[in-house]
Amino acid sequence: MAEVSYARGLAGVIADESKICVIDGVKGELYYYGYPIQELAEKSNFTEASYLLIYGKLPTQAELTDFRKELNSQREIPKFIQETIKNFPKETHPMTALQTCVAMLGMEDVPSEKDSRETNQKRSIKLIAQFPTLVAYFARHREGKEALAPKSELSHAANFLYMLTGTVPTDEISKMFDTCLLLHAEHTFNASTFTGRVIAATLADLYTSVSGATGALFGPLHGGANEKALQMSKSIGSVDNVEKWFAEATASKTKIMGMGHRVYKTIDPRAKILKGLLLELSEKDGNNTQLEVLDKLASLMADKVKAEGKEIWPNVDYFSGTLYEKMGIDSIYFTPIFAIARVAGWSAHILELWTDNKLYRPKCHYTGDIDLKYTDISSR
Amino acid sequence: MAEVSYARGLAGVIADESKICVIDGVKGELYYYGYPIQELAEKSNFTEASYLLIYGKLPTQAELTDFRKELNSQREIPKFIQETIKNFPKETHPMTALQTCVAMLGMEDVPSEKDSRETNQKRSIKLIAQFPTLVAYFARHREGKEALAPKSELSHAANFLYMLTGTVPTDEISKMFDTCLLLHAEHTFNASTFTGRVIAATLADLYTSVSGATGALFGPLHGGANEKALQMSKSIGSVDNVEKWFAEATASKTKIMGMGHRVYKTIDPRAKILKGLLLELSEKDGNNTQLEVLDKLASLMADKVKAEGKEIWPNVDYFSGTLYEKMGIDSIYFTPIFAIARVAGWSAHILELWTDNKLYRPKCHYTGDIDLKYTDISSR
Repeated sequence: MAEVSYARGLAGVIADESKICVIDGVKGELYYYGYPIQELAEKSNFTEASYLLIYGKLPTQAELTDFRKELNSQREIPKFIQETIKNFPKETHPMTALQTCVAMLGMEDVPSEKDSRETNQKRSIKLIAQFPTLVAYFARHREGKEALAPKSELSHAANFLYMLTGTVPTDEISKMFDTCLLLHAEHTFNASTFTGRVIAATLADLYTSVSGATGALFGPLHGGANEKALQMSKSIGSVDNVEKWFAEATASKTKIMGMGHRVYKTIDPRAKILKGLLLELSEKDGNNTQLEVLDKLASLMADKVKAEGKEIWPNVDYFSGTLYEKMGIDSIYFTPIFAIARVAGWSAHILELWTDNKLYRPKCHYTGDIDLKYTDISSR
Repeated sequence: MAEVSYARGLAGVIADESKICVIDGVKGELYYYGYPIQELAEKSNFTEASYLLIYGKLPTQAELTDFRKELNSQREIPKFIQETIKNFPKETHPMTALQTCVAMLGMEDVPSEKDSRETNQKRSIKLIAQFPTLVAYFARHREGKEALAPKSELSHAANFLYMLTGTVPTDEISKMFDTCLLLHAEHTFNASTFTGRVIAATLADLYTSVSGATGALFGPLHGGANEKALQMSKSIGSVDNVEKWFAEATASKTKIMGMGHRVYKTIDPRAKILKGLLLELSEKDGNNTQLEVLDKLASLMADKVKAEGKEIWPNVDYFSGTLYEKMGIDSIYFTPIFAIARVAGWSAHILELWTDNKLYRPKCHYTGDIDLKYTDISSR
């Protein structure tokens, strides 16, 4: 058979066009509908960014008020899903629970192929509103605690932290967590977003497609890196151990988690902002052990590759796990929190795709046998 | 911005290589691991074909006996899933129920990244065994009937029909239904199989990936065509109405369901076999109305495109709906039956991918704005 060359993993292959998000890897900038992430992180918030992703423009005051009201009113999940969650085995991973529950959202609010764009925009808002509730209800169940109903007077971020932990967070923590959600809301064609598009392109409904995207985010190669970066920095322990640990890691070719990115040729702008937040929290609690470890490790790593004429920088997963831990969040919820943020981006991509839909149907290069003779089982 | 050309929907783009399945569109042949589908349909069965797809070779008698035993012993689903199904709203689509339940299979049998290939092969067998049970349990619930436990003395096909309808089918119907499953078990990179691969490439587990693939099959552009072909032939009613109906359909540019295929340049070999089965059943029940309608319509359609120098042929969806209806199956279960068959192919692809895994991460061509200035909300 002739050699055929193609890009494994579709690397470098353009799968579609989009107006939602772009990365400038050289400048280290990320844009949501044209707005730089650094400016959004400073001046906007996750709720407004969700509006931007769903509607493609920044809201007026009246639009934002309505959007916030809608988001707020949709937080509670259907009763039968609340009951179902209580039957989930305790050993269930929160991402499996989430993928399951998202598919269940299509059971009462049954979608149809003929639903309008407006209906699907409303469904996107519902998904953004209900992801935190789904995660928190299951979290309370697996910890053997009573579920806490959403509090409508709290912001999106504060309400989730309250439902998860039982404590209303300070304004400072709420604001930081909100920024974390904003930073994770969208990142062009990653594996989960691409999954959502591939499913939605069959004209499967929004819940069906987002359930599948949630599944892809569960994959250790996709959503789990910040948990691993945290485990790594904790196992190093203190800044004095970094050199020794790094030498051993280099010798045993252990992968350093949370460093490097296919697209960014400088620091990931999200990592820069997250590092700032981690610094702020570390100063507040008087404990900068983890930050020192991460900083030292990143500089050793950078020096090593510099000798090979290359550069390597922290990515979005490098600081976020340590930051979440300082907020009192168990690491098993890191990927679900990623999903709580990214559901805005998934929705945006599916809504955009449906304005000019096309089924994804790539080819497969066949390398197997042909025209084998079926032999009777007695003669095999 | 410069014009960029790329293949929308990844049409013609090779996404990966595979030894599982190939289509010879000119000869009208389809191969599972090198064996022609026509020969498999004649001499093999769905259970053996499932073995072939999971293990990549035909089984010896001892291997097939063990495989059948394993498949048979895995039919019952966990108790908490049985209970959960009873809480699903009756208006739930069976595909939504199935996607949900497949994700739930990972709640008790919690997979890990470190699971061996053998463990995942066993899980594939479990999926093939439990898909019929999941579909039938929900079907009985939505119809307000008591669920029927699997009967281990029945074959895979007969047991499903029994659990769905409450009646043990004749050997003839069982054999025919088994052939239908075999014909639908695998078809290279369709949208649901590609979805399963994209999710599995993040190293998400088998249940997570297959749940997402099930979601993609639910899409009307993917799994729903045989139901639409049946509706079409029923609305035509009798062979005398075909010419008038076709003239109107041509004038109003109505799509003829179940005709034509991107790859086959002659009759889809599966359609040929399904037509034979439909002829057999029609002779048996003395009612060939639908078959006459379908035949007449296909020939009018072929004549029309012949005038344009083209050919068009029935595909797999053209006869199967009518055949299933004659077996007494409600059309809402056609796509779930497709899933009951295709889960063998999905499993085969995921197992193959994991032997040399690579994340799918295509590029997106950005066509949106850049460096927009964030304005204060009061001035928007």
